Amino acid sequence: MPGVDLTAMANAIRFLSMDAIERAGEGHPGTPLGAADISAALFARHLKFNAADPRWFDRDRFVQSNGHGSMLIYSLLHLAGYDRMSLDQLKIFRVLGSHCAGHPEIDQDAGIEVTTGLLGQGIANAAGMALAEAFLNQWFGPDIVDHHTYALVGDGCLQEGVGQEIISLAGHLRLGKLTFLWDDNRITDDGDIALALSDDMVARFRASHWHVQEVDGHDAEAVSAAIAAAKRDPHPSMIACTTAIGRGIPRVEGLRIAHSGRLFREDTDAARRHLGWPHAPFEIPPDILAAWREAGSRGAVEQAAWRRRVEALPADTRRAFDRIREGRLPEGWEGALRAFKARAAETGHSDHGYKISGDIVDLLTEAIPEMFSGAPDLEGATLHKRRLPSFTAEDRSGRYVHYGIREHAMGSMLNGMAAHGGVVATGITYLVFSDYERPAIRMAALMGLPVTFVFSHDSIGIGTNGPTHQPVEFLAAFRAIPNMLTLRPADAVEAAECWEIALTHRTGPCSLVFSRQPLEPARRDGGAENRSARGAYVLEEAEGGPRRATILATGSEVAIARAARALLQAEGIPTVVVSMPCWELFEAQDAAYRAAVIDRGTVRVAVEAAVRQGWDRWIGEDGGFVGMSGFGASGPVPDLYAKFGITAERVAAEVRSRL
Amino acid sequence: MPGVDLTAMANAIRFLSMDAIERAGEGHPGTPLGAADISAALFARHLKFNAADPRWFDRDRFVQSNGHGSMLIYSLLHLAGYDRMSLDQLKIFRVLGSHCAGHPEIDQDAGIEVTTGLLGQGIANAAGMALAEAFLNQWFGPDIVDHHTYALVGDGCLQEGVGQEIISLAGHLRLGKLTFLWDDNRITDDGDIALALSDDMVARFRASHWHVQEVDGHDAEAVSAAIAAAKRDPHPSMIACTTAIGRGIPRVEGLRIAHSGRLFREDTDAARRHLGWPHAPFEIPPDILAAWREAGSRGAVEQAAWRRRVEALPADTRRAFDRIREGRLPEGWEGALRAFKARAAETGHSDHGYKISGDIVDLLTEAIPEMFSGAPDLEGATLHKRRLPSFTAEDRSGRYVHYGIREHAMGSMLNGMAAHGGVVATGITYLVFSDYERPAIRMAALMGLPVTFVFSHDSIGIGTNGPTHQPVEFLAAFRAIPNMLTLRPADAVEAAECWEIALTHRTGPCSLVFSRQPLEPARRDGGAENRSARGAYVLEEAEGGPRRATILATGSEVAIARAARALLQAEGIPTVVVSMPCWELFEAQDAAYRAAVIDRGTVRVAVEAAVRQGWDRWIGEDGGFVGMSGFGASGPVPDLYAKFGITAERVAAEVRSRL
Repeated sequence: MPGVDLTAMANAIRFLSMDAIERAGEGHPGTPLGAADISAALFARHLKFNAADPRWFDRDRFVQSNGHGSMLIYSLLHLAGYDRMSLDQLKIFRVLGSHCAGHPEIDQDAGIEVTTGLLGQGIANAAGMALAEAFLNQWFGPDIVDHHTYALVGDGCLQEGVGQEIISLAGHLRLGKLTFLWDDNRITDDGDIALALSDDMVARFRASHWHVQEVDGHDAEAVSAAIAAAKRDPHPSMIACTTAIGRGIPRVEGLRIAHSGRLFREDTDAARRHLGWPHAPFEIPPDILAAWREAGSRGAVEQAAWRRRVEALPADTRRAFDRIREGRLPEGWEGALRAFKARAAETGHSDHGYKISGDIVDLLTEAIPEMFSGAPDLEGATLHKRRLPSFTAEDRSGRYVHYGIREHAMGSMLNGMAAHGGVVATGITYLVFSDYERPAIRMAALMGLPVTFVFSHDSIGIGTNGPTHQPVEFLAAFRAIPNMLTLRPADAVEAAECWEIALTHRTGPCSLVFSRQPLEPARRDGGAENRSARGAYVLEEAEGGPRRATILATGSEVAIARAARALLQAEGIPTVVVSMPCWELFEAQDAAYRAAVIDRGTVRVAVEAAVRQGWDRWIGEDGGFVGMSGFGASGPVPDLYAKFGITAERVAAEVRSRL
Repeated sequence: MPGVDLTAMANAIRFLSMDAIERAGEGHPGTPLGAADISAALFARHLKFNAADPRWFDRDRFVQSNGHGSMLIYSLLHLAGYDRMSLDQLKIFRVLGSHCAGHPEIDQDAGIEVTTGLLGQGIANAAGMALAEAFLNQWFGPDIVDHHTYALVGDGCLQEGVGQEIISLAGHLRLGKLTFLWDDNRITDDGDIALALSDDMVARFRASHWHVQEVDGHDAEAVSAAIAAAKRDPHPSMIACTTAIGRGIPRVEGLRIAHSGRLFREDTDAARRHLGWPHAPFEIPPDILAAWREAGSRGAVEQAAWRRRVEALPADTRRAFDRIREGRLPEGWEGALRAFKARAAETGHSDHGYKISGDIVDLLTEAIPEMFSGAPDLEGATLHKRRLPSFTAEDRSGRYVHYGIREHAMGSMLNGMAAHGGVVATGITYLVFSDYERPAIRMAALMGLPVTFVFSHDSIGIGTNGPTHQPVEFLAAFRAIPNMLTLRPADAVEAAECWEIALTHRTGPCSLVFSRQPLEPARRDGGAENRSARGAYVLEEAEGGPRRATILATGSEVAIARAARALLQAEGIPTVVVSMPCWELFEAQDAAYRAAVIDRGTVRVAVEAAVRQGWDRWIGEDGGFVGMSGFGASGPVPDLYAKFGITAERVAAEVRSRL
């Protein structure tokens, strides 16, 4: 647009942002004002996108990782012409129901790729997106998939440990289309960054083989040139942009108060004088708006050409591409899984929990060419890799990521892969290490992303490795997370059912939890009905009369429940065993079904090698619970189950004492 | 000892370790064999300790952060002469009840300073110990407190994000007496480290201003010289020791299989031939054992001199020193706290939850000169700093740590401070960020360390910052952790009571949880009795007849419970309000008390702005619950409470519908 330079475009961001923050009475002005020039350079000159079609699959991805400065992305998206981000929305920033929430919340129709605000998550998501792109790029070729991922990065993202995990791993995997734009303003919430940081940040990136440039973050042309250089370099790029936080408001510029301090009308007036912006609040002069709208629609031509290339694909490739970008699994993908289930039921298949999962993953990775897995340095103990070549800097066709000893990176990259689309994102580690990736698991649930988190070694059944490695409180902690299914199968049949549930559940993550020790066969029916999908069901009926007792269990403890039932039945006590692989799915059943399964008129006892918390919902206040009341111990598995009294005899005794 | 060199001493570690692992049939031989020379150099030449008095306060601290190689520390401690680490214990490595558990478990009488095995935690604990030393060193002077902290570090510790947080923060705080001995063997569980790591690790340390040396890790003399140089340098030191994993067993040396592969008698036989060690399993020749025992008792002389210096302290200083090293609070410390409580009760003190906590911390930090606090870049929003100068590289008398945006570092350093002793370790952040430090919180509980974790902004009451920042599942997730008290006070009076509980609870951590929004006064009795110490109690009695309804609540929702009671009482329904600041303490009360408080014969409804999980234990299957069933939203607080139906009217309706 003649006469409209990047600085003017950046100032449009500044004024929209400060006007919205002033109107809301709160918000974080520091970032939108400080990083306005950086993001104007990116959006106006480089970002491949089409505001009229926010979900164009081959768009560049942009993540504002420093989500607290959310007015930046709202202003950008409004200016670029995203329908959902209207001026009216900006005017109700932070009002309940506004698209302009306190922190950006995933809304890909509005241009918000992921929810950000927990520092470090956004850049890790971005790395996951870049990984997905690299894989699909080699699969479908650069005519079909060829886009960059940009993240705007604050100091917090780089101080958080997950930030370094991502620097290390993205460098190692040479994710060359990943670019970080570091808003280096030397101010955090506490004040001068020197209060808590002495790192040579550039050296940290270089130590992991990133391409690093240092520019004046208020020289938008310089930023633009650096982005161009970043695109040419085969390594991931970090552009350190020196900025002044809160740039443009004389009272706050460069100061701590700019981070999240309140703005007043005098501030926005002063900024208008200071920057020569005579326009009223929320008013963008037509030439500047036109320049922005041109940037927002520039991609339409490119998209049209891309669409023609997609349409010209061979039919098979076209079908595969349409399928993966729509998130549909291949037709008949479940065939091998169901055959596995039928066979397991028929043969009474018994094996270590994680081995069963490994066998299933072998089948799934063959049936689903977009399925990814990986583990943080536990390949041998989790068995997800056997049929998956490694995804490496040299080989983008691999589907297994050696994450290194970096659980947090794994979890948050899986979120990025799922948000990107086109791949089925799964990853596995020991259950006890899930604490390290818990922030990412929570974000998957909050965003409603279809990630399958897999865990092995799920209880004291890990044995001699001892209490550090024995997750006694983790099932409860998982079940507390809204919008996630926690699935703990009892045997190979339930394992197949739970995997099927996980891969078809699209509105949130699933956590699949497997034992280390062998799972005895519990189910001998291997038909089409997925009984685990009801969450809980009667596994063994009462015999010899109306049911008097109900034993509820999950996972490896279903075998103990069955043994206890045998003891009680031998004593003439008609006893039911309920297997409960997924509480959340059971909770979603109708009341009649739940009542029939639970049967409050009977004595109820639950057994699970974990803490009691939450079980009262199913067994009532007077129910019995056999499980853990504290941390575990180091010793052989049978000794531990005996020490902690998680035995069939104890379960039977709990029933008897209540009859 | 003439004729006994460090290599012979190291081989004693190797054979004890491999014999124990071979006998146990499992274990991780890689580290004890690979790092034997490093640790022999440290223990024989540098470590200040006295095996006869493992708790000598001014001992050097040694942490084996790569805890999976636990036979290393067990061998070291046995050889050095720690009574509890007898040969018989080594022979039952990994047997239930052995001091030689799968991973080292804190046992300071045996020389195990902290539990390790979750990678990255140990080095962070070590940094916390070094911080405590630096503070006490300036307080009591180098004659009384002057010791080093050493951590043996594996690749996992440095790949985990928390590792970088510690590298950055220890460098920034210039913890010069902290030394990492990096067992750089280039092998992890998956195999060659190049599978997942390309970092220039030395550059990463240098970027944070560490003193770095690179040595041959099998040249014990070179390692010893490097340790000497590290002690002289004012920066934290990292000694990169190039080693061969599993050194000494020809079949496994340098290979992935050495990490955790099984050893057989043929292996130990081959090692005996290879290293010229003709001695039987578990047999240490007298000269080598004597050299080790000399190393283990060398500190006795130094300790005796130190004891004389302690005895010569001025009486006041001596009293203070004895007190802090025994973990006793100053006499009368609770005076100001109780006065605050009495005043709050009298005046009906109302304020934002975190401000109340800040006011209390102001009093406590004055009363308790060894009390530390800090926050990860949330000074202004948590208010723990007002009376605490910063602990910095230049000023060791400060008691507030600017942790930077590094929650995980904070949590695990607090554990190290508590394990070190002599300081009262507290730190604060938003509740939602506790996920980032959850591995450390769990370790505090597992170790039984008296850490006070403080959290603010504990619910949707955070308001417009939105669901990323609203912790709906965190109370449940905390309550699931064994051996931790989770305390959520309802008002200023309970806040004072809960702080008193936290600082006097010595057998495990406490999590103190405060609202952002104002807490209305609930309690007008400010006497000596600590009612919160019973976990739950009747806050408001029923009036006008026998109780028909019981409303249970915690924290900010106690006000809603009280308002609901008022509605119901107005309708003639005698209603009790139970405040439940701490479930764990209530669970520990006798059954009669619990029954009296809960009163199962009444209609029970709980209200808490969090998920229901766990509440069924107190309200029963038919109880009502008013709270959150999913994630929150971004909006003003009153709008959110209305949107999610957490209101007095709704609580009253839940009661009415059950009468």
